[in-house]
Amino acid sequence: MNFCSDNVAGAAPRIVAALAEAAAAGPAMPYGADAWTQAVEARFAEIFETEVAVFLVATGTAANALALAALAPAWGAVYCHPAAHVNVDECGAPELFTGGAKLVGVDGADGKIAAADLERVLATAGAGVQHHVQPAAVSLSQASESGTVYTPEETAAIAAVARAHGLGLHVDGARFANALATLGCSPAEASWRAGVDALSFGATKNGALAAEAVLLFQPALARDFAYRRKRGGHLFSKMRFLAAQMGAYLDGDQWLADARHANAMARALAEGLTALPGARLLHPVQANEVFVTLPPGVADGLTADGFRFYPWGNPADGAVRLVTAFDTDPAHVAAFLDAARRHAGVPAPTVRAG
Amino acid sequence: MNFCSDNVAGAAPRIVAALAEAAAAGPAMPYGADAWTQAVEARFAEIFETEVAVFLVATGTAANALALAALAPAWGAVYCHPAAHVNVDECGAPELFTGGAKLVGVDGADGKIAAADLERVLATAGAGVQHHVQPAAVSLSQASESGTVYTPEETAAIAAVARAHGLGLHVDGARFANALATLGCSPAEASWRAGVDALSFGATKNGALAAEAVLLFQPALARDFAYRRKRGGHLFSKMRFLAAQMGAYLDGDQWLADARHANAMARALAEGLTALPGARLLHPVQANEVFVTLPPGVADGLTADGFRFYPWGNPADGAVRLVTAFDTDPAHVAAFLDAARRHAGVPAPTVRAG
Amino acid sequence: MNFCSDNVAGAAPRIVAALAEAAAAGPAMPYGADAWTQAVEARFAEIFETEVAVFLVATGTAANALALAALAPAWGAVYCHPAAHVNVDECGAPELFTGGAKLVGVDGADGKIAAADLERVLATAGAGVQHHVQPAAVSLSQASESGTVYTPEETAAIAAVARAHGLGLHVDGARFANALATLGCSPAEASWRAGVDALSFGATKNGALAAEAVLLFQPALARDFAYRRKRGGHLFSKMRFLAAQMGAYLDGDQWLADARHANAMARALAEGLTALPGARLLHPVQANEVFVTLPPGVADGLTADGFRFYPWGNPADGAVRLVTAFDTDPAHVAAFLDAARRHAGVPAPTVRAG
Amino acid sequence: MNFCSDNVAGAAPRIVAALAEAAAAGPAMPYGADAWTQAVEARFAEIFETEVAVFLVATGTAANALALAALAPAWGAVYCHPAAHVNVDECGAPELFTGGAKLVGVDGADGKIAAADLERVLATAGAGVQHHVQPAAVSLSQASESGTVYTPEETAAIAAVARAHGLGLHVDGARFANALATLGCSPAEASWRAGVDALSFGATKNGALAAEAVLLFQPALARDFAYRRKRGGHLFSKMRFLAAQMGAYLDGDQWLADARHANAMARALAEGLTALPGARLLHPVQANEVFVTLPPGVADGLTADGFRFYPWGNPADGAVRLVTAFDTDPAHVAAFLDAARRHAGVPAPTVRAG
Repeated sequence: MNFCSDNVAGAAPRIVAALAEAAAAGPAMPYGADAWTQAVEARFAEIFETEVAVFLVATGTAANALALAALAPAWGAVYCHPAAHVNVDECGAPELFTGGAKLVGVDGADGKIAAADLERVLATAGAGVQHHVQPAAVSLSQASESGTVYTPEETAAIAAVARAHGLGLHVDGARFANALATLGCSPAEASWRAGVDALSFGATKNGALAAEAVLLFQPALARDFAYRRKRGGHLFSKMRFLAAQMGAYLDGDQWLADARHANAMARALAEGLTALPGARLLHPVQANEVFVTLPPGVADGLTADGFRFYPWGNPADGAVRLVTAFDTDPAHVAAFLDAARRHAGVPAPTVRAG
Repeated sequence: MNFCSDNVAGAAPRIVAALAEAAAAGPAMPYGADAWTQAVEARFAEIFETEVAVFLVATGTAANALALAALAPAWGAVYCHPAAHVNVDECGAPELFTGGAKLVGVDGADGKIAAADLERVLATAGAGVQHHVQPAAVSLSQASESGTVYTPEETAAIAAVARAHGLGLHVDGARFANALATLGCSPAEASWRAGVDALSFGATKNGALAAEAVLLFQPALARDFAYRRKRGGHLFSKMRFLAAQMGAYLDGDQWLADARHANAMARALAEGLTALPGARLLHPVQANEVFVTLPPGVADGLTADGFRFYPWGNPADGAVRLVTAFDTDPAHVAAFLDAARRHAGVPAPTVRAG
Repeated sequence: MNFCSDNVAGAAPRIVAALAEAAAAGPAMPYGADAWTQAVEARFAEIFETEVAVFLVATGTAANALALAALAPAWGAVYCHPAAHVNVDECGAPELFTGGAKLVGVDGADGKIAAADLERVLATAGAGVQHHVQPAAVSLSQASESGTVYTPEETAAIAAVARAHGLGLHVDGARFANALATLGCSPAEASWRAGVDALSFGATKNGALAAEAVLLFQPALARDFAYRRKRGGHLFSKMRFLAAQMGAYLDGDQWLADARHANAMARALAEGLTALPGARLLHPVQANEVFVTLPPGVADGLTADGFRFYPWGNPADGAVRLVTAFDTDPAHVAAFLDAARRHAGVPAPTVRAG
Repeated sequence: MNFCSDNVAGAAPRIVAALAEAAAAGPAMPYGADAWTQAVEARFAEIFETEVAVFLVATGTAANALALAALAPAWGAVYCHPAAHVNVDECGAPELFTGGAKLVGVDGADGKIAAADLERVLATAGAGVQHHVQPAAVSLSQASESGTVYTPEETAAIAAVARAHGLGLHVDGARFANALATLGCSPAEASWRAGVDALSFGATKNGALAAEAVLLFQPALARDFAYRRKRGGHLFSKMRFLAAQMGAYLDGDQWLADARHANAMARALAEGLTALPGARLLHPVQANEVFVTLPPGVADGLTADGFRFYPWGNPADGAVRLVTAFDTDPAHVAAFLDAARRHAGVPAPTVRAG
């Protein structure tokens, strides 16, 4: 029972089935000139209710770094939360693909940037002054690295600041489905209608094997994107296998149902754990991640039981991160909570008679 | 019936089955800390009869560019055939990953570099002179872009020149299986025993969906490779899906049998076509590609029949490239040859009674 | 009367005279194969009491960026004060020359990093973890951007932390002479004896026209430096003109005397201004820069008088930066203080009878 | 008596005098906000009879690499003669500043590209195809590396091809003055009127200490140039010292007179040497360089006499390169020719009585 990350999961059977079908379908022209890719492009336009340039890649890091490179020149500054994946967890991929742009942290509560803080930072950023990197883009994580989400209003407020200063707005949507599932709004409302220019649309964490899409809502951003992708080594020859994954992922509303499930599992964990005396959430649980300080001994006890998860932050604080996924078994959540209560010395909750 | 490329093929059923099995296997730690990856690493060591550092990626361009970046500094020169994939078909990926190294063409017949020509070029390359990019690596394509192969002796001769000048030796083995199938030697003989330091070992063109391995035979090259791969966006979170493909690919000798089949189909095409009056091979057929000048009208006739393939070189020459794959149907080859004979006004060959 | 920066100054007559002499000296081999360059190299070895690799360039940004590139790979992290010139005022030059390394801020009072803070940051920096940029170097500014200096003991403490974690230590010494003049120690004590691996040794701000030297105290760092410099466009063909400047700069102890003069002028400004009611230094004055909050109206009055200087930080605070140079006229300092007192409504100080 | 290069020369006294004057002129705002820089900008507009964006740097490599970076994206191809300085002698500077663009050789006689050859190469360059670097710019050397010059008509023909394919046109004018002196046309006719978009205008080889200008005739190219220059470390703080050099260089027509002198010295060498039996020019002498095959033993004899020059090409051919400069002494040329005749066993020419 592994709550380390949503990338410890396997893949959704319907997506694997689509891969198998594509594998057996006979010859298809490479590099995206195939029916699967065209269908995915059409499907994204439908889901997002707008024309959109779609570039499939296999990893979230590729999606983010390529998207930022389309938005920021080598002497650009990209504003993001200090804890953003692009800043912390991609070993400098945005720097590689932009040619050396600088990621500038804009701190904020619960993993989110506030529009007012962005405005304050941009006010003294040295735009137009040759000595300084030039403000070029904002990158938000949706859901954030703290498991929280931006409302469309919050995104729009940030987009307004960005636009006023001439910056593009990127969203790292490795967990975009989880955010949407919480927001209950349309994909369009959470993206381009709120001012997003480029979206890294993730599928891998929500059931695909390895499939992400860069969605560009500004045609100008798409102009050179194919060259960027190719020279990054991210153009698949047998593109049908990225497209088949993404097609199956987007077919119907299962992707949102899967994200809702993951989120529900996270909420169940949060509710169960916060009932323990002394337990405390570090952040609101708005997607599929729970950051929680556990009572003394509980984390060690759970680990000894064989549950897997990562400690978080300063080890002395006893905080942990728990991540759920599309395929998290409710029985595993129940088992985890039972064990946690046991280690905390708390009786099991009374089950009301039916 | 499509002879455009070996990347128009789908994927081998055994590889798809392995993917499906991995997808349903429950949680596994990400980024390569899984059983599939470890098994693949062990399997490569076994196949190549040596300790080897293995880095899985999804595309040949990624494999090549990352390998060259491990061999050449930003001010390095990489010597390759002018027609090499790394020089012509990767939109500058080696330049991106090396930070700007220069690819220097060393021309040679049939897509191959001769050791003597390499020696001649290196003699005046300006090693140690600060004004010039510094000789750093040689990159061979095995099989070459002309469908030919380097014998172990030829590779060793080039490696000797490279070593004498302090250069590393990289092999782009997108079609390494096809080369091996022709050479009949062991993987070790065709690589590190012949002096190869880094090998891009391809599986995609021979039946995988998207799986390649960078094999590093010098431990020093591997030291920073994980960072290079990650910041290139080429580290898969669900690494098991690259490893499962490669594991199934390498299981038993089917990968070599598949390559032998592809090569045999190419030879059958070559034999059938060169029997046409006026037809002429541009290069010996030593792997799964045929470069052939067809009699006037034949290419157009075949195209009108619905056969797909690419013209090659100067259109006035009437040359075409035909590529076969692991799954090329002998009946399609026969149909192609029948049609070619028909367009060339040649009677079908007499079938000898059994 | 301009206190904007030490780069508003002209150049020292002895340095100009040396340039003129070099210009008239007839043919000399280019790119450093000349007597001036060799003499400078020998002089640096003498002044620093050690063998040292010397690379002349024309700007401080070039010196810093090239030095950092020798210390940090593209996936490296360089730790510096958030206000460091390399981080704020070089438009991403370190990122360009390193190929995308990340500058990570380690905050500290008065523009300086404390060893303990560096240790704390490095403890969680993710060394060896492929997802994170890898700790590679520390860069100190000596004197700092706040006009303060590191004692040899402070530098050594930082060097010890750096070395313990495998990092190199760079010093941006655009104002190294000013720091030395304050410290009173030897160049060796302030650099390699305190653990410095690479020093950007500035001359431009202290009287040269445009001349800086990268001093590398570790031979391994020098190995590829010539290529880095050349491909950065920083190798002068008529190198004698950089070397002649630096030679004249280092001839005798005038460079230190000039720095002492600049520092004394800064102290005089600081003493005069802090005597005004409500004035307050933002940082100790340890080199040739004064950061001071002036009483209301004083800055505006001085500006109206024609004095030139830059406001500093939040305009509402009324803080200004004053920079002195090798050629600052004491009479200008006196005039500035007289005017400041006048605008502050303070009587001129009584001059004691001799 | 040194004919190795025009960069073995010192500097012209008038330029040194201007530097000295600027050094003593008291405070001036840095980074180009000074009177010298403004005067140079105005002077260039006057000389080139058009509005032009002017960016001063200290080296030709910087000028070229920055100019090419303004013209070509990281996935761009820059077409140049294989022997071009940007391709051979800058250790990959164009690759660094463009972020990895590819320099593609277009061979041609006497160091020059022919428009028809450029057209032929561009016809199959793969414009718009994502696998290939994208044609972006042409770079000509004026005068060329073979000491020849492009007529305005030749430049215009190349510009027409470039424009038809959407490419920008750069000229490496490290010896632009020498070319102009031969052409006898106006600077405008040799540059923007012939279709040049960006010109590296050299002064160093013709009498400056270290001063070059990037001249951009298309305003769009200038938009981000200041950031490129700064992050390359090529923005001088005491910019007056670049501007003072260039100002003195351009003052009156002395720069052209100096170039005419250098060219005349080269022609004198060529005429004298080609009179030797068996001597042969490798290229027409149209600027300040002579490439000549000398009779057996002559080069060795001259070297033994203490004359300095570089052998050229294959040592067995006995070819040498001789370069003259603004300050070449006619007596040195005469001495060189006398010695050459002596070593060739040829009597001194009869001097006609006046």
